[in-house]
Amino acid sequence: MEDMENIISGLNEIERRIESGEFLWRTDREDVHMNIEAELIDLVGDPAKKLHTARSRNDQVATDVRLWCRDSMDKIIHKIMDFQVALIKLADSYKDLIIPGYTHLQRAQPLLLPHLLLAYVEQLERDIGRLKDCQQRMNYCPLGSCALAGTGLPIDRFATASALGFIEPLRNSVDAVSDRDFLLEFLSVNSILAVHLSRIAEEWVLWASEEFGFLTPSDAVSTGSSIMPQKKNPDPMELVRGKSARVIGNLTTLLVLCKGLPHAYNRDLQEDKEPLFDSTETVIAMLEVSTEFAYNISFNEERIAKSLTAGHLDATTMADYLVYKGVPFRTSHEIVGKSVALALSKGCQLSELSIAELRSVNPAFDEDVYKYLGVQNAVGWFRSFGSTGKACVMEELRLWKDKVVRR
Amino acid sequence: MEDMENIISGLNEIERRIESGEFLWRTDREDVHMNIEAELIDLVGDPAKKLHTARSRNDQVATDVRLWCRDSMDKIIHKIMDFQVALIKLADSYKDLIIPGYTHLQRAQPLLLPHLLLAYVEQLERDIGRLKDCQQRMNYCPLGSCALAGTGLPIDRFATASALGFIEPLRNSVDAVSDRDFLLEFLSVNSILAVHLSRIAEEWVLWASEEFGFLTPSDAVSTGSSIMPQKKNPDPMELVRGKSARVIGNLTTLLVLCKGLPHAYNRDLQEDKEPLFDSTETVIAMLEVSTEFAYNISFNEERIAKSLTAGHLDATTMADYLVYKGVPFRTSHEIVGKSVALALSKGCQLSELSIAELRSVNPAFDEDVYKYLGVQNAVGWFRSFGSTGKACVMEELRLWKDKVVRR
Amino acid sequence: MEDMENIISGLNEIERRIESGEFLWRTDREDVHMNIEAELIDLVGDPAKKLHTARSRNDQVATDVRLWCRDSMDKIIHKIMDFQVALIKLADSYKDLIIPGYTHLQRAQPLLLPHLLLAYVEQLERDIGRLKDCQQRMNYCPLGSCALAGTGLPIDRFATASALGFIEPLRNSVDAVSDRDFLLEFLSVNSILAVHLSRIAEEWVLWASEEFGFLTPSDAVSTGSSIMPQKKNPDPMELVRGKSARVIGNLTTLLVLCKGLPHAYNRDLQEDKEPLFDSTETVIAMLEVSTEFAYNISFNEERIAKSLTAGHLDATTMADYLVYKGVPFRTSHEIVGKSVALALSKGCQLSELSIAELRSVNPAFDEDVYKYLGVQNAVGWFRSFGSTGKACVMEELRLWKDKVVRR
Amino acid sequence: MEDMENIISGLNEIERRIESGEFLWRTDREDVHMNIEAELIDLVGDPAKKLHTARSRNDQVATDVRLWCRDSMDKIIHKIMDFQVALIKLADSYKDLIIPGYTHLQRAQPLLLPHLLLAYVEQLERDIGRLKDCQQRMNYCPLGSCALAGTGLPIDRFATASALGFIEPLRNSVDAVSDRDFLLEFLSVNSILAVHLSRIAEEWVLWASEEFGFLTPSDAVSTGSSIMPQKKNPDPMELVRGKSARVIGNLTTLLVLCKGLPHAYNRDLQEDKEPLFDSTETVIAMLEVSTEFAYNISFNEERIAKSLTAGHLDATTMADYLVYKGVPFRTSHEIVGKSVALALSKGCQLSELSIAELRSVNPAFDEDVYKYLGVQNAVGWFRSFGSTGKACVMEELRLWKDKVVRR
Repeated sequence: MEDMENIISGLNEIERRIESGEFLWRTDREDVHMNIEAELIDLVGDPAKKLHTARSRNDQVATDVRLWCRDSMDKIIHKIMDFQVALIKLADSYKDLIIPGYTHLQRAQPLLLPHLLLAYVEQLERDIGRLKDCQQRMNYCPLGSCALAGTGLPIDRFATASALGFIEPLRNSVDAVSDRDFLLEFLSVNSILAVHLSRIAEEWVLWASEEFGFLTPSDAVSTGSSIMPQKKNPDPMELVRGKSARVIGNLTTLLVLCKGLPHAYNRDLQEDKEPLFDSTETVIAMLEVSTEFAYNISFNEERIAKSLTAGHLDATTMADYLVYKGVPFRTSHEIVGKSVALALSKGCQLSELSIAELRSVNPAFDEDVYKYLGVQNAVGWFRSFGSTGKACVMEELRLWKDKVVRR
Repeated sequence: MEDMENIISGLNEIERRIESGEFLWRTDREDVHMNIEAELIDLVGDPAKKLHTARSRNDQVATDVRLWCRDSMDKIIHKIMDFQVALIKLADSYKDLIIPGYTHLQRAQPLLLPHLLLAYVEQLERDIGRLKDCQQRMNYCPLGSCALAGTGLPIDRFATASALGFIEPLRNSVDAVSDRDFLLEFLSVNSILAVHLSRIAEEWVLWASEEFGFLTPSDAVSTGSSIMPQKKNPDPMELVRGKSARVIGNLTTLLVLCKGLPHAYNRDLQEDKEPLFDSTETVIAMLEVSTEFAYNISFNEERIAKSLTAGHLDATTMADYLVYKGVPFRTSHEIVGKSVALALSKGCQLSELSIAELRSVNPAFDEDVYKYLGVQNAVGWFRSFGSTGKACVMEELRLWKDKVVRR
Repeated sequence: MEDMENIISGLNEIERRIESGEFLWRTDREDVHMNIEAELIDLVGDPAKKLHTARSRNDQVATDVRLWCRDSMDKIIHKIMDFQVALIKLADSYKDLIIPGYTHLQRAQPLLLPHLLLAYVEQLERDIGRLKDCQQRMNYCPLGSCALAGTGLPIDRFATASALGFIEPLRNSVDAVSDRDFLLEFLSVNSILAVHLSRIAEEWVLWASEEFGFLTPSDAVSTGSSIMPQKKNPDPMELVRGKSARVIGNLTTLLVLCKGLPHAYNRDLQEDKEPLFDSTETVIAMLEVSTEFAYNISFNEERIAKSLTAGHLDATTMADYLVYKGVPFRTSHEIVGKSVALALSKGCQLSELSIAELRSVNPAFDEDVYKYLGVQNAVGWFRSFGSTGKACVMEELRLWKDKVVRR
Repeated sequence: MEDMENIISGLNEIERRIESGEFLWRTDREDVHMNIEAELIDLVGDPAKKLHTARSRNDQVATDVRLWCRDSMDKIIHKIMDFQVALIKLADSYKDLIIPGYTHLQRAQPLLLPHLLLAYVEQLERDIGRLKDCQQRMNYCPLGSCALAGTGLPIDRFATASALGFIEPLRNSVDAVSDRDFLLEFLSVNSILAVHLSRIAEEWVLWASEEFGFLTPSDAVSTGSSIMPQKKNPDPMELVRGKSARVIGNLTTLLVLCKGLPHAYNRDLQEDKEPLFDSTETVIAMLEVSTEFAYNISFNEERIAKSLTAGHLDATTMADYLVYKGVPFRTSHEIVGKSVALALSKGCQLSELSIAELRSVNPAFDEDVYKYLGVQNAVGWFRSFGSTGKACVMEELRLWKDKVVRR
């Protein structure tokens, strides 16, 4: 009892010294655990020699890493939420902005910008879900597993697990000190998140080009050139795209590291820290940079509007119109193809073809077809759940704003 | 209405032809969807041209892949459970078998074989958890997202989602046709599972060597050599170890594939199938082979017993004994070190040192120390939750047997 | 001697049967070697039992794989050369076409299209160099290393090595049957080649977009859409970009496979074939597709010409002009920056600023500055070795045409 | 001319300050180039503004990286040679030590330890070859390629290339600033080297186990345990095995980074440094540690000798004997199989079977068979080029000693 008090007061003193920067870390004392035990012996003498009772560095390190991961996942989740908020605000600022939607990087159909931005938000939400599942699955305590076999001393692993905020102790001591599957899962989840961010990055780099011209980053998030002051290189998003590579590389490292290792602890596992730390720091940086970028871009509405006339983005809407008129889909598909060909030959848009011209293609067309043509009409027309129709998108935007406020 | 009946009866006929092998797949009809539509047109004529209404191959393929994954995950989960059963039966057959436990592939402490086998079972259980989380997260329906923007036709995406066993439709059409994060998660989970299996494989290959000599695979699961009939190469487990590499390689492929792709669909994504199929087939084969192997090995109890005398596996138990006697852990650690050194110098085991010899090291030793020495006593001594102590392990084995029976 | 004649005539007969398709491959005879030996025994009896003298499947397989690689590398080299020829022809067809050159996907300086195409050719030439180095390094013969230790029978490994076209026998039997570094090198080289192709693919996909509009693929190499006949999706290059992923994934597989394997042969190595075959087939397909694509694109000269007015691509040339006038580079850099700012404020190009306006920025400008402005003048101005200057590029083009003809 | 002298003397002063540690690096000056230029302006004024003439950071960075790689490759090559020397010395110290050779980690045939050690040396020699090829291929100079298009100023790229020790300038400015294939090749070569080292590491970790007991690391290269003073954990080689993972991970990072980047420079490429530096430092550390380990192990000859009686390592030699007697190989194979079975049933070795017993299996056996049995005889018997026969191995050892001395 007295020993315990001595140990606790000694540890409190050590904590104070560490926090104030007075604590002298000695590399000859190998690691954090030995530094603290040795310092404690200096401070309170013999009772300190009881500190390591029923412990081993194997279970201590496994416990430390899980605590570190648990906190890091919280941090990443919050950074994702920050980015989601930035995207939602951006969507809110451009509620009516129509942009071309692409397949094969070819213009296909019109999209409301908020619809695309909310697609990013959905993807990020699943990343949060993966992080939470991973966090839940790893929140079990190795402490008391000792070197690999447990101990004969009467310890209460449920008490220490609970004190450290774990759900329960791990149920098998060999498993507890030798498996790193929670790290593999964490780094996989980070990699998937990084891939999501790399895709957004690619898109924004494209949009910032002279050729697309959809967005302009502010000076705060672009590098210029003293010789070409008009240049606004979207460096932050190029770096986000590039940094996704190292997140993936870190996952590879850890998979290769663990493959084929026999049980229980092997020294190879010491190499698990650097990919873990680097992966975590990198995705946090990627998220911060992306958030900052999202707050510092403006969309060039006029230029985008002008560009929408190219690409016949209303062609599928015209096909839907014909289906409404009772034309089988496959047939209406062919009719639209002929109409587009006619428009191409005349160098005009679908909406600029006269009703006579349209009827020359197929008599199913009526005057009401013009209510469906043009990108504004086309976007207005979409109404399936999850579509880019104005009403659908606004409802999703509202739900996301609610959700974000509530958490 | 009549159209619908025609279409359904036509599709039923096509299903019959496919199942009976009569259906002629034509590569000039590109893919499965076009084959069926074209055949349907041949069968029922014009109404078939309505089949593709409010659809695109983009959302169809995304739906197909999710259905395939959902089923495949169920298959993998069942194969994991089969392997767990095999491991639990093996544990049950060798309830009392003590083997050396290793750190750094050096002998450290004695383990009950069932304790190590249940460590494998725990790891596999988390793999099941990961598969179920992934399955739950991806069980949302892309159908009706069409090319990328949804449709203006009055479809009920909740009805189709429900009919196909999905929880709900996906909420964003662009997200639905362009993200493959569920595949990245699935292949990550498979990779972690494969790493687990590679570690068991490595262990069993080591154990089957002349030098370890812990286990002998039966002829059914080993290759011999006509020239060396005594040889029992553990080929199946070497292949399990080797095949883990391609599961990891498939994950790399998919991460590289998706990195930096702009939205929405790009043709690159066609390349997602092969790594998916190969990863799935490979882990299923790895699990089947491992299960078969587990049913076909016998442990060489006599040889293992003989080997336990080397390595002073009871040293930490002796340290626990001294802690019980009131010696601080760090001090008891040193005393045991000296005792082991004494035993080494005399070429004997700790239990073979006389009480006088032990007391010459430190007077804290009493006659009762011999109740703690020797691997049998040592294993008997462990009692912390999750330890290798006989009682602990038997309780875990009982719980696992119950659990396995119930599912 | 008679045995030898029997064996040879038997093998000749077997070769004939294989080539004519008569040979019956039996899976119960395990592999190609055992099929042939068993068939030979059926054909010529006892002498055939001597076929396997001083051999093992370990050295046979190692030899087979090297022969296969040697041929495959030749094939890949020829496919690369075909692609180089296509690129050179393309360069030759557009000798004077100026396009924007990019950094950060932002327009930076004007480039002659042939200059960029020859950059690809240079990169591919290094890929050939890597393949040749790899081919040379692996062209040593394992045959006669037998299982792992060699043999006591009086074989002549130099003779068999030479007969099979190898430089020499490998000098160490354990090395010969257990190392797969030549495969790791081959798959690394393929991966680097695949990265090169993926970069070209990305560029061409961008160029085929409505926004860039630099090139149009012919119908032979693009997929359209019945509904949007104007669409020309550059699918082949999307697939090239996508397929680079599996080449990288195959390399990962093989690295993971080999990591940490003890000597000599382990069954894991059986898994080396599929990534090898897939990597090889994939890069060949990527090269064929890229070549075909290069022969089937046309550049939209008019549209490109129009686009060159945006971006002040002649700014660095203006800086060079000032350096010629004696202005230190860093200072001239700032003067040009101010001139561009002036042009931006007036919504004109640098060449449209009057000499008075330029002199208002800095008096160093003279009338001769207009000889340097505009992209035509700018490109004409470059003259450093390896630059995009017309003379430099034409000389390189000439050298490449010569080189290609000669090989 | 005067400017040049001012610049040179200023640069000399800056070099002096950097070397003496006086130089103040300022992060607001972005990078090394801008720090030096700004300092030079402070020192010598206006002439310093000419320093950057006909340069860009794009070509400067590309040049710096190549210089760094060239030096690093030299360092790695020397570290490999050091390790080869250690292995050759080890081989020289154990000229006659016979160990079991393994396939499938099952004992197969006897090997001279030097034969296995020289297999490592051969593998490392090919790693040197790969490094030299890579070094040669990348030793071309980007300087003067400027941002991406070259320059119109009259620079002599051959002179600068030569002054910096490059073979020649690169021939295409776009290629020069945008390709990183030399880094991909370098990191591939490092990965193959790392795989080689991981295999040696695995082998030595196995050999250091109680079960194999082939080698004992000295205290200098093993960690013990205060509680188990007999333990000699082979940590350094576990770390070598583990560190191979990050070398592979770094390669993955760089491949993912470069995949799909359009020309020319993209900011993503800034991320190429860390995997490059880490890969290089890691393989150097792995080589140093392996070399140190090789100098600090002793082989347990007595224990190895005892172990050789298990496994019938002379079986294939017995088969060779029968071939000499005229028995076809396939038949002799079967006869040996039966002999081994007989020995197994009697619990003895092949050499302990009487000639009568052997003849009961097959009459081809004569008294001279005993000259071939037993591992000593068996090793003596091998004589094919590259085999483990004493004479062959000693000749190879001699050649390697010569070669190593000469370089």
